[in-house]
Amino acid sequence: MEHLDIPKFLGLMVIMLGVAKLAGVLAQRISQPAVLGELIAGMIIGPSVLGLVDPNIEVIHLLAEVGVIILLFEIGLETDLKKLLQVGGASTVVAIVGVALPFILGYMVCWFLGLSNLVAIVAGAALTATSVGITARVLSDLGRLQEPESQIVLGAAIIDDIIGLIILTVVAGLTQGQEVTIFQVVKITGIAFGFLIVTLLLGSLIVPLLFRFVGQIDLSGTLTVPAVILAFSLAWLADQAGSAMIMGAFTAGLLLVKIPQAHEIEVSIAHLGHFFVPLFFISVGAAVDVRVLNPVNPANRQTLLIGSLLVIAAILGKFLAGYAPFWFRGKKSVIGVGMIPRGEVGLIFAQMGLSSGVFNARLFSAITLMVMVTTFIAPPLLKFLFPAKHPGQEPPEPEGIEDLVTKP
Amino acid sequence: MEHLDIPKFLGLMVIMLGVAKLAGVLAQRISQPAVLGELIAGMIIGPSVLGLVDPNIEVIHLLAEVGVIILLFEIGLETDLKKLLQVGGASTVVAIVGVALPFILGYMVCWFLGLSNLVAIVAGAALTATSVGITARVLSDLGRLQEPESQIVLGAAIIDDIIGLIILTVVAGLTQGQEVTIFQVVKITGIAFGFLIVTLLLGSLIVPLLFRFVGQIDLSGTLTVPAVILAFSLAWLADQAGSAMIMGAFTAGLLLVKIPQAHEIEVSIAHLGHFFVPLFFISVGAAVDVRVLNPVNPANRQTLLIGSLLVIAAILGKFLAGYAPFWFRGKKSVIGVGMIPRGEVGLIFAQMGLSSGVFNARLFSAITLMVMVTTFIAPPLLKFLFPAKHPGQEPPEPEGIEDLVTKP
Repeated sequence: MEHLDIPKFLGLMVIMLGVAKLAGVLAQRISQPAVLGELIAGMIIGPSVLGLVDPNIEVIHLLAEVGVIILLFEIGLETDLKKLLQVGGASTVVAIVGVALPFILGYMVCWFLGLSNLVAIVAGAALTATSVGITARVLSDLGRLQEPESQIVLGAAIIDDIIGLIILTVVAGLTQGQEVTIFQVVKITGIAFGFLIVTLLLGSLIVPLLFRFVGQIDLSGTLTVPAVILAFSLAWLADQAGSAMIMGAFTAGLLLVKIPQAHEIEVSIAHLGHFFVPLFFISVGAAVDVRVLNPVNPANRQTLLIGSLLVIAAILGKFLAGYAPFWFRGKKSVIGVGMIPRGEVGLIFAQMGLSSGVFNARLFSAITLMVMVTTFIAPPLLKFLFPAKHPGQEPPEPEGIEDLVTKP
Repeated sequence: MEHLDIPKFLGLMVIMLGVAKLAGVLAQRISQPAVLGELIAGMIIGPSVLGLVDPNIEVIHLLAEVGVIILLFEIGLETDLKKLLQVGGASTVVAIVGVALPFILGYMVCWFLGLSNLVAIVAGAALTATSVGITARVLSDLGRLQEPESQIVLGAAIIDDIIGLIILTVVAGLTQGQEVTIFQVVKITGIAFGFLIVTLLLGSLIVPLLFRFVGQIDLSGTLTVPAVILAFSLAWLADQAGSAMIMGAFTAGLLLVKIPQAHEIEVSIAHLGHFFVPLFFISVGAAVDVRVLNPVNPANRQTLLIGSLLVIAAILGKFLAGYAPFWFRGKKSVIGVGMIPRGEVGLIFAQMGLSSGVFNARLFSAITLMVMVTTFIAPPLLKFLFPAKHPGQEPPEPEGIEDLVTKP
């Protein structure tokens, strides 16, 4: 383990935050989501290209994990359970089919390639989650957020996120165990649901009282620190209960949505997120071994083959899911394409598979390739199918987007 | 070096942030500054009492250092150089005498006790800095912020902070070198002033252009990350130039005060500060070995003797400085008492002395005792000499206080 002195640590932070910001802005300049730029920047400064940042340094690894915990806390804080329940049938059908189909197709690809059952399950799971942030951002930039197609996509993407988190918990349990039995799957699903239900029920009684009490005794303070403490505590508790840490952080977000100071907390956590979240994406990018994607080397062709097949499974699965609500009369192609970008959660699966030893470097790179291609392909496709309504319109502020997406 | 897994790291963060918040609120409840509560909480959870948190764990140490860098960046962001120049003669005289007198008295105490020249200089330096945050907060709580006495105190405290930072840079250089010559002192003072002047001159040309450019290319983003990058970069640069890292962070703050988005940046950095700054105070508290303050053990009497003499030197030096602007017709006692709390910068000296090996654990504890007593004694004394103008008045929000203090 490398020892870091303070100036060297500050230098690393400047490099990571600097290239993340720069690459994010460049990506947005060419109409791509910022996260794509951060991933590519991570790849470039990582050990396989420039070697400026090693994601295995303990403090970098810990801060990156804080980044993903804060990201899921933010997603929780932006998720309105009531609105979710209002969006109705179409969103639910799209979400369920949009999880099942890519999983089955991804599993079949792995099975066809002779990979093990556990690897096929984790790889299939990595194909299930839609990135609600990217989709919402693109639809908003096109001025199409209030169209029925967009509403279905957004509702489905939010439901998808919750299903994805449960799958993530199941998969996290599976990657830690040795054997995959139906009993184990049921047990882990039970713990995931149980943790979510117990925490939501107990939490919705205790958390509002707790935060009212904190607000009363701490006249001069802000709620940033109590909110972070809640997120970290539930992440720790989820881990102790055998569930996924990010599940705890997400639940902490859901619990705080309802309290009067929710918006204030959302803004505070967003500021922490600006600092911590890019460290996660840079670390994930840095973990990609770019060399295994080089097609000139014959040894890499297997990675590229798996990656290409997973890309096809990922795109086809979500695209067909758009046609599942057969009664809907709008542009069904838009729904499916809107569900294609995988983003954060797909990367979390990839990272989990790698760090638990279920994936080797090649499969990790193939999954990352799938995440990058799906994230990259969706914005131009959406633009083509669903042209901007008001072409001259300025894109609104990101905070405004989130408000439109999740608040009535 | 202890290895930390993620749940254990989250647990440590929950403990540190939780007790810091709790102790801060409790301190405020008994009309004491929050920082005092955080220090005491750190002492209690540190290795010498409960042993819950070890400040020597690498990631804790690095995050605590990020905390002090962000704190000084915040102080810089709240320092209005123009306002500083307007407050005129009285503030300057109070500041200069209020630095010189405690330094001389502190040096004499150490000399009297037979300590070395270097130790006496560093200990004397630790007695020089006034905590502008604590003083401003107390005066505002008393509804007395606009009185001439308060204006002099606040002006002097801000000048004092800058002189303190230069002394800090000199002392940081001295603690790294072996010999203390006049040439060295002049050279280090030259580097400190040189770094400040060159960075301020070059920076005031480049930074506004840079941030206007960043604001133009990054329509959707916030300036949190660019601001942090600037602070970390100048901290790193200051270290490379042979100056103190916190001097670089403070200069970064001064450079951003003038740009149009200064308030937005101040709010963002305050949110990061809520998370990182308590980690610094908890770490400093945890570094105090409470056992050496136990008077029952005869071996500790020397620590308590040094501590008591330093407390007297610290209080007397600042109190007499209040009488330096002899032409001022207001309550001179209020000025001196307002300058007594040492707070953050005093602790940074103590920490620097300890980590460089200039101070042993006893002297470190004696200095910490001095910081704690001066921080603790000032609020009740000020209340006694300068009773609240509107006793029923609600204390204003902290952000409001800072606005009153540093903005026209």
